[in-house]
Amino acid sequence: MAETKVCDELVRERNKCTFNVQELIHVIDGGEKNTKERKEVEDLVCNDPRLKDKVPEEYLSHKERYENAVRKGCTLFEILREYSQKHNTMDAFQPTNKYRVTFGVVKDISPFMLHMGMFVPTVMNQSDDEQRDKWLLKAISMGMIGTYAQTELGHGTFIRGLETTATYDPDSEEFILHSPTLTSYKWWPGGLAHTANHCIVVAQLYSKGECYGVHPFFVQIRDEETHMPLPGIKVGEIGPKLGFQTANNGFLGFEHFRIPRRNMLMKNAQVLKDGTYIKSKNDKLTYGTMVFVRVLIVTDLAYELSRAATIAVRYSAVRHQSQLKAGQPECQIIDYVTQQHKLFIGIATSHAFRVTGLWLWKAYSKVISDMGKGNMDQLPELHALACCLKGVCSRDANARVEEFRLACGGHGYMASSNLPIINGIVTATITYEGEYTVLMLQTARFLMKAWKQATAGTAMTPTVSYLVKFFDNDRVQWSNDTEGIVRGFQAVAAGKTKAAYEAIQKYEKMGMDYEEAWNSASVQLVNASEAHCRAILIEVTWREMKLLSEKVSPSLGKVLEQLAELYLIYWTLEKRGDLLLYSTITREDIAKQQSVYEQLLSLLRPNAVGLVDAFDVRDEILNSTLGAFDGRVYERLMEEAQKSPLNAEPVNQSFHKYLKPLMSRAKL
Amino acid sequence: MAETKVCDELVRERNKCTFNVQELIHVIDGGEKNTKERKEVEDLVCNDPRLKDKVPEEYLSHKERYENAVRKGCTLFEILREYSQKHNTMDAFQPTNKYRVTFGVVKDISPFMLHMGMFVPTVMNQSDDEQRDKWLLKAISMGMIGTYAQTELGHGTFIRGLETTATYDPDSEEFILHSPTLTSYKWWPGGLAHTANHCIVVAQLYSKGECYGVHPFFVQIRDEETHMPLPGIKVGEIGPKLGFQTANNGFLGFEHFRIPRRNMLMKNAQVLKDGTYIKSKNDKLTYGTMVFVRVLIVTDLAYELSRAATIAVRYSAVRHQSQLKAGQPECQIIDYVTQQHKLFIGIATSHAFRVTGLWLWKAYSKVISDMGKGNMDQLPELHALACCLKGVCSRDANARVEEFRLACGGHGYMASSNLPIINGIVTATITYEGEYTVLMLQTARFLMKAWKQATAGTAMTPTVSYLVKFFDNDRVQWSNDTEGIVRGFQAVAAGKTKAAYEAIQKYEKMGMDYEEAWNSASVQLVNASEAHCRAILIEVTWREMKLLSEKVSPSLGKVLEQLAELYLIYWTLEKRGDLLLYSTITREDIAKQQSVYEQLLSLLRPNAVGLVDAFDVRDEILNSTLGAFDGRVYERLMEEAQKSPLNAEPVNQSFHKYLKPLMSRAKL
Repeated sequence: MAETKVCDELVRERNKCTFNVQELIHVIDGGEKNTKERKEVEDLVCNDPRLKDKVPEEYLSHKERYENAVRKGCTLFEILREYSQKHNTMDAFQPTNKYRVTFGVVKDISPFMLHMGMFVPTVMNQSDDEQRDKWLLKAISMGMIGTYAQTELGHGTFIRGLETTATYDPDSEEFILHSPTLTSYKWWPGGLAHTANHCIVVAQLYSKGECYGVHPFFVQIRDEETHMPLPGIKVGEIGPKLGFQTANNGFLGFEHFRIPRRNMLMKNAQVLKDGTYIKSKNDKLTYGTMVFVRVLIVTDLAYELSRAATIAVRYSAVRHQSQLKAGQPECQIIDYVTQQHKLFIGIATSHAFRVTGLWLWKAYSKVISDMGKGNMDQLPELHALACCLKGVCSRDANARVEEFRLACGGHGYMASSNLPIINGIVTATITYEGEYTVLMLQTARFLMKAWKQATAGTAMTPTVSYLVKFFDNDRVQWSNDTEGIVRGFQAVAAGKTKAAYEAIQKYEKMGMDYEEAWNSASVQLVNASEAHCRAILIEVTWREMKLLSEKVSPSLGKVLEQLAELYLIYWTLEKRGDLLLYSTITREDIAKQQSVYEQLLSLLRPNAVGLVDAFDVRDEILNSTLGAFDGRVYERLMEEAQKSPLNAEPVNQSFHKYLKPLMSRAKL
Repeated sequence: MAETKVCDELVRERNKCTFNVQELIHVIDGGEKNTKERKEVEDLVCNDPRLKDKVPEEYLSHKERYENAVRKGCTLFEILREYSQKHNTMDAFQPTNKYRVTFGVVKDISPFMLHMGMFVPTVMNQSDDEQRDKWLLKAISMGMIGTYAQTELGHGTFIRGLETTATYDPDSEEFILHSPTLTSYKWWPGGLAHTANHCIVVAQLYSKGECYGVHPFFVQIRDEETHMPLPGIKVGEIGPKLGFQTANNGFLGFEHFRIPRRNMLMKNAQVLKDGTYIKSKNDKLTYGTMVFVRVLIVTDLAYELSRAATIAVRYSAVRHQSQLKAGQPECQIIDYVTQQHKLFIGIATSHAFRVTGLWLWKAYSKVISDMGKGNMDQLPELHALACCLKGVCSRDANARVEEFRLACGGHGYMASSNLPIINGIVTATITYEGEYTVLMLQTARFLMKAWKQATAGTAMTPTVSYLVKFFDNDRVQWSNDTEGIVRGFQAVAAGKTKAAYEAIQKYEKMGMDYEEAWNSASVQLVNASEAHCRAILIEVTWREMKLLSEKVSPSLGKVLEQLAELYLIYWTLEKRGDLLLYSTITREDIAKQQSVYEQLLSLLRPNAVGLVDAFDVRDEILNSTLGAFDGRVYERLMEEAQKSPLNAEPVNQSFHKYLKPLMSRAKL
């Protein structure tokens, strides 16, 4: 096909690449076998003609867009159902790029996302055996469509504040679900509006006149034959958003709605026929799922960064603007060092998040396996780690995606670049599954305890043991190498932890109680958590990338090491203020790091396109006029514009209705 | 009306306010008279029943949304045309909040924006007298609709690279407009797609076989009676974007399209009948408009910040979440210091940008008046100033709006909060009318010249004269007061200017030519420009706010001073790394500033709602479920959701078409 001819710029860039792109593709997939399997799934989905749109989603009305997403989502399920009959698809519940092909079906979020993402896992993990037998298979095979309804109109992160009640009635052996106020309406769950016929509802459990806190219930909300909301159910959609337009987020209210006793998920706590409440053996057992989701978010962000990087880097290689020297032809914008400064840290960050996410996943798996053996000791540490990593990585990813978008100038503002949609997806992660500031303060609680232990000389858990090392250290010795940087960031984290700890003490001395003092010092507490998280990110990224670079061919290893070094130095320069406070780094050291940084940019320059090619995001999943493999940027921009229904007619009806009368009434 | 009952939280907050809100409203409007006039215009527009929507814009298809915007835009023009017959409306071309009521008509951008924003001003300023007589009145009275077509698919900020040609044909005394390539198509102009029938086209002028660079031409593109594109014109829309959905951005291509010789705007350069080219007396004469637009952007951003602040602060006063102390009821989230940290700097930044924008406007007016007298000396300085202020303010405003949005948690992601649309408007300013990095490097060129002058002991222009002061200073003496902060920021700017200057020299010594060295040092050059701009923002904000606070009542003066101080200290903490490098500030000084910062947050807390009330943004212009004056947040969220066409039917057709078949095929 003439269409797939690659533009000269990208051909030249690919010829410059010093490493084997295929090798890096396998590294990112976690092995050649994984790459092969991913491509199989992608082929199945991307080659299905039922999944193509004539008119791009963005032109449709809100309602049409939803209907189109349901149509395609159902087809996707049929394909994957068939696939799962021949293959083990349980790997979908681990960090993997194998199933990211959904972006090749619905550009934005699928209305079915919470079915597999939260409904099925909750049924799987919180039901007792009998309940699981009853519901799980039907759920997995899409015999019902479910979602997870926790957040309410007036209540988000603070789960204890939820208002929906589930009151046990021993006479009928039923729970009565009720929404006592407007603010108690469930609000936000994806797919809840018009898609799901079942959901998990989190509600305050009352029995025998007593409240036992929030518990999950399995609730049918729509008739299976007619899809009509059942009597006592008020359900609908919450309206358009910044992104997630096709997620079908809904609201849900109950009017004394009755469900059988056995619809309470009873793996942990239970209510007996007579209304007796049996407590869960351990409160923390329900904790795991929350941590699980946050761990996966870190690797999801790595993937979104790889999509945005692919778009911005390829566009920067194709786009020409201005002259580096007078009289020369306009140069590729990727040759501007300011552009490299915007782009390359984003590539490095994608790798940093991928390796850190996998490291976190291993830690999570170990803790879950220990929990199976009755050992819960490491859960608080894992929880503290997952909180700050989810928080900081979502913020960083958002900043990087925005920088990629801005690096594409005006065209990055076009929907057809797909950067606005990626931006909408990534920015949402800062808020959902635990709002940034709330999570950072959770980690800060852990840090304050750890600091107290450090001052008392108690033994520390691994991820905070560095605090002891810098306990008495006023300013750590700086050195201009990677170990020096890792040490410097740990010293900053220790210093800020100490400062926050002392700020609380200061406010207490002024007469505040602990919680008031905590609030007054909370800006510093968030800073301490961030610094702790940066120390982790820096250390883990360096260690894991270094290990990786030693396992691969020397030519690739060198590039991976450069990326890791760029990541470390970028943050050294970014956080030089903190390093000046807590290490002996000097103005000269900083100037030196700046030089090394500029040198690294020029070293990475010839491999930029190769590095994003290695993310191996197919055009159908990238959905971008600016980022396609062939680099036909301008042709695609114009082709996409031609699809606008407004362009189907030379004159829009509004001319005759409004414009002509307006102009003819002008006093000439 | 029962509906307008204000919620208890906001009543309490308003009772706490320590200053006269009405007094501050007048300050922001620039006088009581201005407030009165603004409210007259707002009443005229907001009370017109023709301008109400039944279904909110966001639910419509792209095409319907455009048609709706044209309908309402035409009505708005009728209203304003009538108003202008009784009042002087030339104040629309100055920084004023009087005409911002357009946001009460079209939530996003009007397809007519460039008509009054760029088409009319260009006709006014670049035509000769005869041309002005012919076109201006018709344009102002909407007898034609115009736009400004400069940017091309392949060419943005680098104007010299534009490809569209205007070749003079002396035989017919016409210019032949032509688009030789795909990349030469005009791309982006607002209103160009299906709205405008005329436009200014910027093209490379050729006469007698020679190219004379880019010039503006007045071009009719559609038939006035039928609105059909004229033969030789290809025009259409470019498609959906991150924001500006109703701006009707278009593309435009010419196929040997002929226009009369006298359609070249001839105030400056001219082409005579025989094709002789007459040069403009001064290249810089066309410069003014560009600076004019950038100056206005700074005050526009102040206004957008005031809208976002109003939404986030009122919501934070109404929203309750979690407990400050165990056992207490859930507290208003505005009582969390972390929330105050997100909100109050945004309020302060709106004031900072307003007073800096007005200061810049005065400088601009003086330079224009001097230019009228033939004195162009101060234009380069003004240009350098406008470049970096437009750049830095757009970046800062974007960050603040995003922070406001995130401060509203999940609900800030709802379109009905209006924060996503404000975000879309503000983030675009980073790119349009001069891309951030390009503008920062323009200022850097000026700074490098200034530094060279400083090293040579030459006299400096006012805004850079501080460079001399810190020329030989290694680290300036720090003091913990506002003068100390201003001095500190100037020292940082001088230090970074010096560092960038020396980096270029270093690269030159390594054998690079100047432009290569410039490129290699460009990250540092951008940093220097930013530092210069921060020094200006800090100094001007402090001086102007201080002056203002002395003119008003003491109770208001105190609050204005607190805001200015907050602005200074926020940036001191934010840029402590730079201050540590270029001043004698210590760890103890920084801790002290942190304390003062925390104290300022608590001082401003009782006035937070009063401060945003003083922005006096009417509910119809705010367009926000979260930010309305009455604080009925949850009621409005639910009322808006009810307007969704998806909620008009209990069961969507996609159930019968797709969901039911999918579920029935499940293997149970």
